[in-house]
Formats: sequence, C-alpha cells, structure tokens
Amino acid sequence: MGVFIHETATVEKGSVIGDGTKIWHYAHVRKGAVVGKNCNVGHCAYIGTGVKIGDRVKIGNKASVFQGIEIENEAFIGPHVVFTNDNRPRSVGDWKLIKTYVKKGASIGSNSTILCGITLGENCMVGAGSVVTDDVPEHGLVYGNPARLMEFVCSCGGTLKAVRKAGNAVVMVCSECKKTVKIPNSVFDKLEGV
Amino acid sequence: MGVFIHETATVEKGSVIGDGTKIWHYAHVRKGAVVGKNCNVGHCAYIGTGVKIGDRVKIGNKASVFQGIEIENEAFIGPHVVFTNDNRPRSVGDWKLIKTYVKKGASIGSNSTILCGITLGENCMVGAGSVVTDDVPEHGLVYGNPARLMEFVCSCGGTLKAVRKAGNAVVMVCSECKKTVKIPNSVFDKLEGV
Amino acid sequence: MGVFIHETATVEKGSVIGDGTKIWHYAHVRKGAVVGKNCNVGHCAYIGTGVKIGDRVKIGNKASVFQGIEIENEAFIGPHVVFTNDNRPRSVGDWKLIKTYVKKGASIGSNSTILCGITLGENCMVGAGSVVTDDVPEHGLVYGNPARLMEFVCSCGGTLKAVRKAGNAVVMVCSECKKTVKIPNSVFDKLEGV
Repeated sequence: MGVFIHETATVEKGSVIGDGTKIWHYAHVRKGAVVGKNCNVGHCAYIGTGVKIGDRVKIGNKASVFQGIEIENEAFIGPHVVFTNDNRPRSVGDWKLIKTYVKKGASIGSNSTILCGITLGENCMVGAGSVVTDDVPEHGLVYGNPARLMEFVCSCGGTLKAVRKAGNAVVMVCSECKKTVKIPNSVFDKLEGV
Repeated sequence: MGVFIHETATVEKGSVIGDGTKIWHYAHVRKGAVVGKNCNVGHCAYIGTGVKIGDRVKIGNKASVFQGIEIENEAFIGPHVVFTNDNRPRSVGDWKLIKTYVKKGASIGSNSTILCGITLGENCMVGAGSVVTDDVPEHGLVYGNPARLMEFVCSCGGTLKAVRKAGNAVVMVCSECKKTVKIPNSVFDKLEGV
Repeated sequence: MGVFIHETATVEKGSVIGDGTKIWHYAHVRKGAVVGKNCNVGHCAYIGTGVKIGDRVKIGNKASVFQGIEIENEAFIGPHVVFTNDNRPRSVGDWKLIKTYVKKGASIGSNSTILCGITLGENCMVGAGSVVTDDVPEHGLVYGNPARLMEFVCSCGGTLKAVRKAGNAVVMVCSECKKTVKIPNSVFDKLEGV
C-alpha cells in the first residue's frame, strides 16, 4: 500500500513509517520516531524523537506524543491528547525524561492529559477530558481529574459486568459482545464505582 | 465580501463556505462541510466531513469539530475546544457515530471537551476547561469536570438573577443589560449553585 | 545567533523576535507581538497581537497565547496550554479584553487552561491538565479543576518543606537543591494540602 504523507505534513528524515500508514495535514514526525503499519496520524499531530508506535494505531488530530512515550498495537490516542515527559518542568536547567507506556488496545479519550511515569494497561479506556495521574489496569475505564477507576470495559468497548468469583479473580462478561474477561481480585478491588 | 482562505489553510473541494467567512492559517475544512456566512475559523482549526455550521459563528484556534456536530448561528466555539462523536472509541472494529447539537448563541469556553449525544441549548455557556457530559439547558452556565449547572446567563453574557416566580417559570433579569428571561421551573430546579 | 523561523511557520511583519529564538513548524506569531531572546515557540503554537514574552521562555507545541497576556523571563508554557482574555465570550457584540500575567520562572503544565484577569506568581507551577481560576502565589504549586494550592515548589522544581516560622514568614527548604525560601504566613495559610 505504501505510505501516504500529505504534502503539508513534515516527516523528518531518520523516522520510520510503516506500510499503509497515513500522515495528515500539518502533522510533524521527528527523526528517530518509529510508526508502525496501517496507522493514522491526524491533522496537526506531533510524534517526537524516539517515540515508538505499533501497528493499527490511531493518533487523533492535534495529539502530541513526546519523546519517552511507547504505544503498542491498536491503541487509540484521541484528538488533542497530550502526553508529558517531565514531572516538574522548568524553562531552564536540567531535566530528567520520564517514560510512559500505552499497552495494546488501550484507548485515550479526546483532550486527556497523561502524566508521565505511568502505564496504561491493555484494553483500558480513558474518558475524554481526563487527567491521568496513575497507572490504569488492563480493561480499566478511568475518567475525571484526577482520573479514577470507575468501571471495566471489554476490548470491544462494552461494559463488563461481574458474574462470579473464581479464586483470585472476578469473572466478568461484556454487556455488548458477551465475551468473558477475568480481572484479578487485587485489581477489581480498586474500583471506585459511582 | 467573498470568502477569505489563508494560503496555508486546506479547504477541500465539496465544502461550502459562506460569504464573508474567513479561514485562517493551517485550518482544515473537509469536503461535505457547510460553513455559514461571516464566520471565523481560527489557526489550526478542523471542520470535519458533513459538519453544519450556521452564520456568524466563531471557531477558535485549534478547535476540532468532527463529523456529526451541528452548530447554529452565532455560537462561539472557543480555542482548543474538542467535540467527540464516539462514546467508546477503539482503534479497530465498527463504531457508531453519535450526534451533538450546539444551539443558537451558545458559547463554549476554551479547551472544553464536549461528550457526544448531547445538546447545548440556546444562549448557554460552558466555562473554560470543562468536560460536558450532559445536555445544557437554554441560558445555563455550566463548568467543571464533569460540568454542572451553576448559574443562568443572558445572551449578552451577564448573570441572570431570579426576581419572581410566574406560574411554571422563574423570571430572571440580567445584571448587565437588564433584559428579562423566563426559565421554566423544571430547568431552574436543576441549578447546583455554589 | 540570529533568529530561526521554520519555513512552514508564519511570522507577521511588525512582530519582534529576539536573538537566538526559534519558531517551529506551523506556528503563528502575529504583528505587534514581542518575543524575547533564546525562546522556543513550538509546533502549531500561536502568539497573538500585542503579546509580550520575555527571554528564555518555552512556549510548547500547540499552546495559544492571546492578546492581553504578558509572560516574563524563563517562564515555561507547556504544550496545549490555552490562555483566555474574555470572561464571558459571545460570538457577537462588544467584549472587554482582560489581562493575565505570568511572572518570572513560572511553569504551566501541559493542557492547562488559564482563566483571565489573574497573575501566576514567580516560580509558581501549575500541574498538567489544570483549570486555573485564581491568582497563584510565588512558588505555589496548584493543580486540579479548579486548581487549588497544594504545595510550594522551589525554582528548581523540588518540593519545599517548612522548617520553621520566622516572624511574618515560614522558612522552607527545597528537598532537592536545599535552597531556602521564605513564604509569607498569609500565603502559606492558603495551602489546601492533600
């Protein structure tokens, strides 16, 4: 399929863009960034030096993914999402880069702010407009400022409902696709509910 | 007056731009979008496919208005505002577009996030930095994350003060322009106040 | 050193850009703006008419600094930060510009929203994703929506710990660089803590 780069985008030499990926208007991909196959990088999005992005990832319009962020396959980074890589930024002086990981299939809703040094677990979901200050477990749905664990969600996006205990885990079933997911008790107990 | 499109902007064929409207630097208007007369579309703003925007609307710098959003005359969409059109976004699989309506004269403060499936009523106002998760009534002022109904505001932006009951409504007067506005009791009672 | 302006940026005639300053991709600097020396203006950032910015200031990617904002030396304006200059914006009718001041060495975390009419004090810090609705004192660390005073921070970014009272002030010492800072009692008492 090749790579599509809109004529107004800036893709620096020394970046690697996978087959089938599209880079849209006014986006900027820095040297040393690696973007996988069949990704979509939206209007005015930014991919920093050394960022690693997997396959089939969507980077929404105006999202900013800075140096130190790694994003696995099939993650969804919503429009206007911003990552950070410095806990106490100052304009002058030294600083220490702090890394952040977005695991396979995780979704980050529009305009969320992701503090650094955390991991967003597989298939988790961050509600739009959230400020994420802590790790998010696999399948966790978090939202708010600061974001709190409010629900568990399926890889399809449906709400998971607890049906029974099974040793060290809670068995949950998706209200949409009926898939079964096991959530460890130690994770389930972090739920803040409504 | 004609249409002004800055030379760095991208306005796709198949969009309709009304007389007197200005499209500024690095903005992107997609095919199938309809933008009314005497509008202003700011730096890096995005207007998606099929979006309908009325007359005398301001779309601030870097605001993103996606497919499924309809905006009536004289609305103000602040800088960095982002709309959504998918409740549970995932990078792969089907999704269902959910519509959002911004009524005549409504204002959305800078950097607010508007969840989908809701209506922002006539002359309402959303405070800057809010996350709006529910309908906003006519003349309602909401803010916070999630946004809550904190006050009523006049079309001029002034605070409305309750002066008396009149059957099924509360009569309110603007502290700035002295205009009288009637708010139904059922709406007035949703006020969370301070 | 000269001024670097990326070929995709728009810097209007009638703006003043200091020596050693870099203006990056798709940024827009309006006429009448004054940007100091050795500043960095990121991807898609916007500097409005009449804005005054000191030396060694970082303006992050997609930050918007509108007319009426003044920023002193060594301030850090994070990515996606947006300022406002109108308390009750409407699309039509008159409006009154309200000014905002960012003092020397202040830092504003990514994606924060700064309401107008306030002052961010010297060396203060605003946590990422905050909505700032009130003045921030010197060395104050605020965060949340609305932002609240949670801690005091050193010019190096380290946490300041109270060690003793000294008349009208509290003597604090930086947990990182061991510098001593005096915070007036009247300011210290505004702390909301955790």
